[in-house]
Amino acid sequence: MRTLLLFLAYNGTRYHGYQVQKNAVTVAETFQNALERVLGERPDIKGCSRTDAGVHANHFAVSFPTKSQIPCQALVRALNANLPPDIAALQCREVEAGFHARYRCTGKRYLYRVRNSRIKNPFAQSLELLYPTHLDEVLLDRAAKAFLGRHDFSGFCSAGSSVEDRVRTLYDFTVKREGELVTFSVTGDGFLYNMVRILVGTLFSVNAGQISPEELPAILESGNRSRAGATVPPQGLYLDEVFYDPLPAALTPSKKEETL
Amino acid sequence: MRTLLLFLAYNGTRYHGYQVQKNAVTVAETFQNALERVLGERPDIKGCSRTDAGVHANHFAVSFPTKSQIPCQALVRALNANLPPDIAALQCREVEAGFHARYRCTGKRYLYRVRNSRIKNPFAQSLELLYPTHLDEVLLDRAAKAFLGRHDFSGFCSAGSSVEDRVRTLYDFTVKREGELVTFSVTGDGFLYNMVRILVGTLFSVNAGQISPEELPAILESGNRSRAGATVPPQGLYLDEVFYDPLPAALTPSKKEETL
Repeated sequence: MRTLLLFLAYNGTRYHGYQVQKNAVTVAETFQNALERVLGERPDIKGCSRTDAGVHANHFAVSFPTKSQIPCQALVRALNANLPPDIAALQCREVEAGFHARYRCTGKRYLYRVRNSRIKNPFAQSLELLYPTHLDEVLLDRAAKAFLGRHDFSGFCSAGSSVEDRVRTLYDFTVKREGELVTFSVTGDGFLYNMVRILVGTLFSVNAGQISPEELPAILESGNRSRAGATVPPQGLYLDEVFYDPLPAALTPSKKEETL
Repeated sequence: MRTLLLFLAYNGTRYHGYQVQKNAVTVAETFQNALERVLGERPDIKGCSRTDAGVHANHFAVSFPTKSQIPCQALVRALNANLPPDIAALQCREVEAGFHARYRCTGKRYLYRVRNSRIKNPFAQSLELLYPTHLDEVLLDRAAKAFLGRHDFSGFCSAGSSVEDRVRTLYDFTVKREGELVTFSVTGDGFLYNMVRILVGTLFSVNAGQISPEELPAILESGNRSRAGATVPPQGLYLDEVFYDPLPAALTPSKKEETL
């Protein structure tokens, strides 16, 4: 019995999120079906995270045990032949028995992509948020630093979450512009339900002058959801990277993806 | 009565091409419906070109007469509110009476986008061609120069075209790589049915060693469709720019698109 750690990328547009649900097409179920066709067995798969409907992933890790002796590269190729065009298998490696993609994950990076334009981009309708008011990326990049470090993020979590420990550590939070595209990048040891989307929505409130950057520490400390900004829509959100410690070879930049 | 020249961009994925057809959703019909909702009249619209099912446009020009006095910028905004997310109105200007977007067009630039990778990109499934064999963009860029100038392109036109004059002039044909993305860019005074897709397919044959670059002038002169390469699929093809002489102000780079 081997345990494999496999990285996927997916366009979440037509899926009801990652996690298996009744009566809805999900990434997990679509992946399980492809894996079953390739391996002839249906392993118990652990995903690194849950993503909401319409949210995308540049890297999403899954781990599972298998009796199959198929080489990793051959598995990636066979999966790509069996997965629909909007889910790609990127890389696979063998890990020690019992490895769990979620529990062993030590951090994640999310991106939120905004097209800061009055003109919609017909090629990215479900891949970025269209935001017609000018965003001051220098102001927002500076303001975002208020969230860095270890905090109770209760005020940045959607109602309905049953998670009790709401302390998380953010390592990095930057806002950058490339032409019309403004990208929010946030890296932390873990994230609460809708946390990234509420953090970005709060920076939108800063941009609009509804919240001053100086208020952010007090809003964070208050733990009061109603003092933070709105939850921005899902289509701009990408799970960009999943970190393990020690980093799997799959994540070192030179071997990150199979290249020609 | 005013005559307007308006530029659209569209993602052709879910359309059966530009031109109105019975029993099929087309860009032209979708645009006409939006225009009718905005103007309260249904003008006779002239498109600059026909594009096939699945082909995209970064710029597509339409001209039409209208009794409406709506300012150009307001028309663009109202159209964007009435068009689906995969069609955008970019820019509009008033032109002289009788201006015809196709007859007055003096040239066009097409792009063909290829992801040169073994790994599919789940975010661009219908926006580029996945080509897993290494493309030698330096070789192909040099080979493409054989097509420049004034030629009878009969060998590079799909059967079924009723066009009699098959002489066209190509001004520019380049092949460039940015990472995994290889872009073929071809500019000419006009193009025959499927001509760009056959030109790119012929360069694929050069890449595969099935045609040597030295043979290209003889293949071109032969006018024999069977000596050229295959017709590549539509999803990588973009009508990128439409030129008029004198260039409409809409096409000068600084005013090309409405910016914030």
